[in-house]
Amino acid sequence: MPDIKKIFGKNVRTYREAKNLSQEQLADLCGLHRTYISHVECGKRNVSVENIQKIAQALRVKISDLFAGADAKKNK
Amino acid sequence: MPDIKKIFGKNVRTYREAKNLSQEQLADLCGLHRTYISHVECGKRNVSVENIQKIAQALRVKISDLFAGADAKKNK
Repeated sequence: MPDIKKIFGKNVRTYREAKNLSQEQLADLCGLHRTYISHVECGKRNVSVENIQKIAQALRVKISDLFAGADAKKNK
Repeated sequence: MPDIKKIFGKNVRTYREAKNLSQEQLADLCGLHRTYISHVECGKRNVSVENIQKIAQALRVKISDLFAGADAKKNK
């Protein structure tokens, strides 16, 4: 099973950087702490749906965008 | 902001019923408790990414499927 925390965190970082936001700026937009965002991006946090929603809205992406690469490929 | 816990829970219920699984069967497939699944479906649980992944895999759906309807529509 792929490490969902790492995949999620990597996607957050990718979108944050693409929007030229610092971790602190993203944290402010989400109403979360900068260190929390840092830990999320490093795959150290088992983020909950409410925070997933906050992060997606702050980044102006769809929630599903933050799970890109999370689903194992299937033949069929 | 839409209630992400309720949307997520409703999607879990929809897919579970479509697969003709009881809450207990889904719980067993996920390695979670039946009451936990029940609370998730009722939108009472702020589910974490690790459990989201377990539920998606047990239902054999993509994680993004469980967030259907979660993203606000945008005019653009």
